[in-house]
Amino acid sequence: MSVGLEYPASLLPIPGIRVAAASAGLYATRRLDLALIELPEAGQVSIVFTGNKFSAAPIQLAKQHFDAAMPRYLLINAGNANAGTGRKGISDALAACESLARLCGCRSNQILPFSTGVIGELLPIEKIETALPGLVDKLAGEPWLDVAKAIMTTDTVPKAVSKTVIVDDDKINITGVAKGAGMIKPDMATMLSFIATDADLDREVLDNLFRESINESFNRITVDGDTSTNDACVLMATGRAKRAKIYPGPGDAYHSFKQALVEVCKNLAQAIVRDGEGATKFIEVRVFEGFNNDDCLSVAYNIAESLLVKTAFTASDPNWGRILAAVGNANINDLKTERVSIYLDDVCVVKNGARCEAYIEAEGKKVMLRDEIVISVKLGMGECEQTVWTTDLSHDYIKINAGYRT
Amino acid sequence: MSVGLEYPASLLPIPGIRVAAASAGLYATRRLDLALIELPEAGQVSIVFTGNKFSAAPIQLAKQHFDAAMPRYLLINAGNANAGTGRKGISDALAACESLARLCGCRSNQILPFSTGVIGELLPIEKIETALPGLVDKLAGEPWLDVAKAIMTTDTVPKAVSKTVIVDDDKINITGVAKGAGMIKPDMATMLSFIATDADLDREVLDNLFRESINESFNRITVDGDTSTNDACVLMATGRAKRAKIYPGPGDAYHSFKQALVEVCKNLAQAIVRDGEGATKFIEVRVFEGFNNDDCLSVAYNIAESLLVKTAFTASDPNWGRILAAVGNANINDLKTERVSIYLDDVCVVKNGARCEAYIEAEGKKVMLRDEIVISVKLGMGECEQTVWTTDLSHDYIKINAGYRT
Repeated sequence: MSVGLEYPASLLPIPGIRVAAASAGLYATRRLDLALIELPEAGQVSIVFTGNKFSAAPIQLAKQHFDAAMPRYLLINAGNANAGTGRKGISDALAACESLARLCGCRSNQILPFSTGVIGELLPIEKIETALPGLVDKLAGEPWLDVAKAIMTTDTVPKAVSKTVIVDDDKINITGVAKGAGMIKPDMATMLSFIATDADLDREVLDNLFRESINESFNRITVDGDTSTNDACVLMATGRAKRAKIYPGPGDAYHSFKQALVEVCKNLAQAIVRDGEGATKFIEVRVFEGFNNDDCLSVAYNIAESLLVKTAFTASDPNWGRILAAVGNANINDLKTERVSIYLDDVCVVKNGARCEAYIEAEGKKVMLRDEIVISVKLGMGECEQTVWTTDLSHDYIKINAGYRT
Repeated sequence: MSVGLEYPASLLPIPGIRVAAASAGLYATRRLDLALIELPEAGQVSIVFTGNKFSAAPIQLAKQHFDAAMPRYLLINAGNANAGTGRKGISDALAACESLARLCGCRSNQILPFSTGVIGELLPIEKIETALPGLVDKLAGEPWLDVAKAIMTTDTVPKAVSKTVIVDDDKINITGVAKGAGMIKPDMATMLSFIATDADLDREVLDNLFRESINESFNRITVDGDTSTNDACVLMATGRAKRAKIYPGPGDAYHSFKQALVEVCKNLAQAIVRDGEGATKFIEVRVFEGFNNDDCLSVAYNIAESLLVKTAFTASDPNWGRILAAVGNANINDLKTERVSIYLDDVCVVKNGARCEAYIEAEGKKVMLRDEIVISVKLGMGECEQTVWTTDLSHDYIKINAGYRT
């Protein structure tokens, strides 16, 4: 079950990029599980990788390849994370790149491998190699939705979005796909997400834009506080749009493009939360009046990751004491508890650090029965604010994660 | 359901201390919910309070009183935490102390209040005041088990233990009670726990001993990573044992007493974990070969608090990849993943950072089916080691916490 998550609408091809998806039989039941993205030679690519120190073999190899060459292909499989697989994992990932390089006539270090699925099992490399020729044959501009389907694991809905920005009468398209539903707390990276645009941007501009966009989207979500070994987020810019190169500076072009990119990233990031394992509610945690952003984020994540807060939401119980306790656990110097206010949507539950006198439990209950709820906390310390998105913690989270492998 | 937790055996009275429990009607169904502990004038007391910045009214008042005077009485109620209750909460807690002071002929600041239960509701002070005379009348040396019962909230078993240490042919007794099953991740403090001994110790010695003991017990447990607003741990020493004053220094006395105190603290701390909300397994996480203790604790808590690890244990699934990922998320500088080994009991699952070649899944499964499991991680970085205790995360945790209030 997902919360307010619609099936992707039609997706826009990105001039210069071809994609494909196939079934390599990596799951017991046949489904799309292998995807390929082809980039033009002249494009620009920006990537953010997982902060998990046990990064998976494909992540290690993708980093090496990306340092050495401009990527021409991204090869992505679901069903097996190729993580915790030691040297064999690296050589398997490399073997897949080499096979694909032979088929496509490029160097193996121009291919970036990505994997997602069960950790600790060897990659069924023969199955992947067998599926590669058919995958390459299918490359085309349109089948982005198939890519979104092929990278799903415990996701219940494919996650993809397109957006068109009009800049000085020229159209720029952005299309992105993402996967993720559990092991979600990106840190300097995100779940697998691949976003492409035909905008023309220099690498440095692309890197900065992407980092800023991620910090307002993928790096602000948490389902269970776990950061995966395989997270990566890729932004590709082909430069094929009519519009001239986009630079920061005067005029609206840069701002408009950034706004559209942030919206695409937020849409995909929030889709991951909305499809969070067992999620019955989509919760936005907004922290205002912090002395600095770190304080705001510490409060927001303490609330968003408190099992007691999450289970209260599952029960639609306006148990604001648990939110109060979570604020008190945040790592903030000199918190003045008597200045803290807490709201459930527009209902004030805590004022000056204690139960708001005007608060009536029935009002809180009314909010808690909604599918989408905003928790707002005002710290009364400064001007900073931060927002984080999360889910509740339901029986189904346990069911999914106590049953994922066995 | 609790894991390997036995009903307390007979408890030893501590010369100089009287205790009592009564029902003040703080729960819908009648049960013991109010407890009193009387200390001798000449005793010594050491207390560690919660690190939560939204400390409850009784905690704030107990700190003030403890700074001002040697405590004569501890007054503890379950059913209401008197937290998030603002000034009214403080005045309610003070009113309870004043009423008791009148009955007992002491000053109100010689009374320390403690509360545990629902956060954010006003203390039903009249009910407590009505119950006080009967409570005082019942004071006696024996009824420690009633105290353990009176402080329970979601606990399923009262937690109490006694221990006798023989020091140079003299007997010293230690008796402790504790409560706690959820909102458990003590930080500089613990759930409510009250421990008494007839040993004779100076305040400074008592403080040091207690701090060290807590760091090997209450500060090494986690159920859900949440630190409560009301945690406190009290150690009382009456000095009534025949044995002369215990000092650190040559001889076995100090060492023997410390060992016994640590055992009592560990027993109570582990009892809290064994009774952890919805617990079906008792999990010990041992991290070896760390460069420093902080690194070891970071790894241990990352494992112990990973929802994915916890749910794998619920399913008895030897999904060691989740443990590996949790190690990779720990906040360690320069982790050499290729040096990391992981064991489930005595079964090596990860060696040199990857799946152990000799590992057979059936062996892992056999371990995972046990009720009590040790996860050992060797970091290969240094000489330090740390141990943390936790539980799995089952459907019942959700059931208990999604239904606690409503």
